[in-house]
Amino acid sequence: MRLRRQIRRWVADGHPQPHAVFMQVGDNPASSQYVGMKNRQAEKIGCRSTIELLPEDTTQQQLLARLAIHNADPGVHSILVQLPLPGHMDEQQVAESISPLKDVDCFHPENVGRVALGLPAPRPATPQGIINLLDASGIELQGRHAVVLGRSNLVGKPLGLLLLERNCTVCYCHSRTPDIGAVTRQADILISAAGRAGLVTGDMVKQGVVAVDVGTNFVHILDDAGEPEYDEQGEPRMQLVGDLLFDEVAEKASWISPVPGGVGPMTIATVLENTVALYRRIEGV
Amino acid sequence: MRLRRQIRRWVADGHPQPHAVFMQVGDNPASSQYVGMKNRQAEKIGCRSTIELLPEDTTQQQLLARLAIHNADPGVHSILVQLPLPGHMDEQQVAESISPLKDVDCFHPENVGRVALGLPAPRPATPQGIINLLDASGIELQGRHAVVLGRSNLVGKPLGLLLLERNCTVCYCHSRTPDIGAVTRQADILISAAGRAGLVTGDMVKQGVVAVDVGTNFVHILDDAGEPEYDEQGEPRMQLVGDLLFDEVAEKASWISPVPGGVGPMTIATVLENTVALYRRIEGV
Repeated sequence: MRLRRQIRRWVADGHPQPHAVFMQVGDNPASSQYVGMKNRQAEKIGCRSTIELLPEDTTQQQLLARLAIHNADPGVHSILVQLPLPGHMDEQQVAESISPLKDVDCFHPENVGRVALGLPAPRPATPQGIINLLDASGIELQGRHAVVLGRSNLVGKPLGLLLLERNCTVCYCHSRTPDIGAVTRQADILISAAGRAGLVTGDMVKQGVVAVDVGTNFVHILDDAGEPEYDEQGEPRMQLVGDLLFDEVAEKASWISPVPGGVGPMTIATVLENTVALYRRIEGV
Repeated sequence: MRLRRQIRRWVADGHPQPHAVFMQVGDNPASSQYVGMKNRQAEKIGCRSTIELLPEDTTQQQLLARLAIHNADPGVHSILVQLPLPGHMDEQQVAESISPLKDVDCFHPENVGRVALGLPAPRPATPQGIINLLDASGIELQGRHAVVLGRSNLVGKPLGLLLLERNCTVCYCHSRTPDIGAVTRQADILISAAGRAGLVTGDMVKQGVVAVDVGTNFVHILDDAGEPEYDEQGEPRMQLVGDLLFDEVAEKASWISPVPGGVGPMTIATVLENTVALYRRIEGV
């Protein structure tokens, strides 16, 4: 892997090992899984990687104090705070408290602004992962009509800006769009990050569309009678699905990225790219 | 005027007078005119207003040094650096050197990011001026299909984000859009900030469109034979026109904002609103 070779060379030249810090508050299983994957991948490319697991009842002040220590530590090159944080915490304040120079997830408003302005900055992980996935699949972006479903700060909004930077015509739809199908049927490239299972049906896309599903929706698994299934503990069985009715859309699509799979691994790759970019800037290599 | 009453009350309560600093490098006539207007309007609402006119051959270092003084001066509440700067200067570095707390034109990446994220921030002057103009004219935004022509950092891009915040479906077109007319014909609200005279013709809009022209194009005045006219000094006569073929579009539009006129005055109003907002935050009133 390219990043691994680069890091090996810098370290051989006497530079410090890149050091990524992943902070997690509480033990949400999905968060633990994401943090674990990022940690493993960071180590794989030759970074030193630290998971800092803070208890669920950590106060905002305590988290900010730990952040300040990592911000000030010249031996730390990148900091990621895994979302979501427990309900008693203020995620926005946390985002603004990460040093923009170590902000590997592009949470800080200054980095969000730099991306919007087309300036060098850590790239927003999921949106950049989608761009990289399309690039890696040989899909031409320039001049194509891209429709983004959803306008979240983490995915939809920055994704539209990245597509614009790549010379797509970009159209944002969302919950207040009166006729979403009328817009999506024009899409050469359709990316759904709305978070509504089954939002996009086959009749809402045109023949040959490039479709990327970024929805993450946990829905009940139904039995043959259409009733929710339960496990031995009496808990309903759930499954992860995207926003697209996959079979219907796949039938018309020239290319499709499903949920689960698809975008997830590309997101982690962006975090690693950002880690190395932040390291290079801090260490001047 | 509301701002004037507010300022009078704060000053009567013993707070300092809001102080706006307008910096201009060189004596570009258009810049002098804009700065003069902003200065007059700021004084009209009761601000202290200072125009700092620096010579054309000011170095980047000198400008940054002056900026640093205003940034540090607790008696200065807002700073505007009039663009364009002379060619030897780096506008982006200047934008990043204005304190985000005094950045009345929303040039600093941190403020650009805060606007993108929907957080409190000084608003980008021209885009917010357009929103205010539409609001003042009683035009409903929510759920409407808005098309933005142009994706500049100063107008097109932030304007799309403000329209998105107001629940429009938002579509960005630009020079790489293969068939602009196919997109603009769908617009309930069409805003052109592309900077190409005559870009939007009557057949590119639908009946009843709300059309806002933000183009500023200086074109030759032609005589009856279609040849450029010249003045007594032998200089070609120029006029300011927008992006819309006004007569053609006006015939189909339910509402239209022309160039010149229209958006310009609203831009200045946004600068004044921002000045007062920055003052309130700094003085805690």
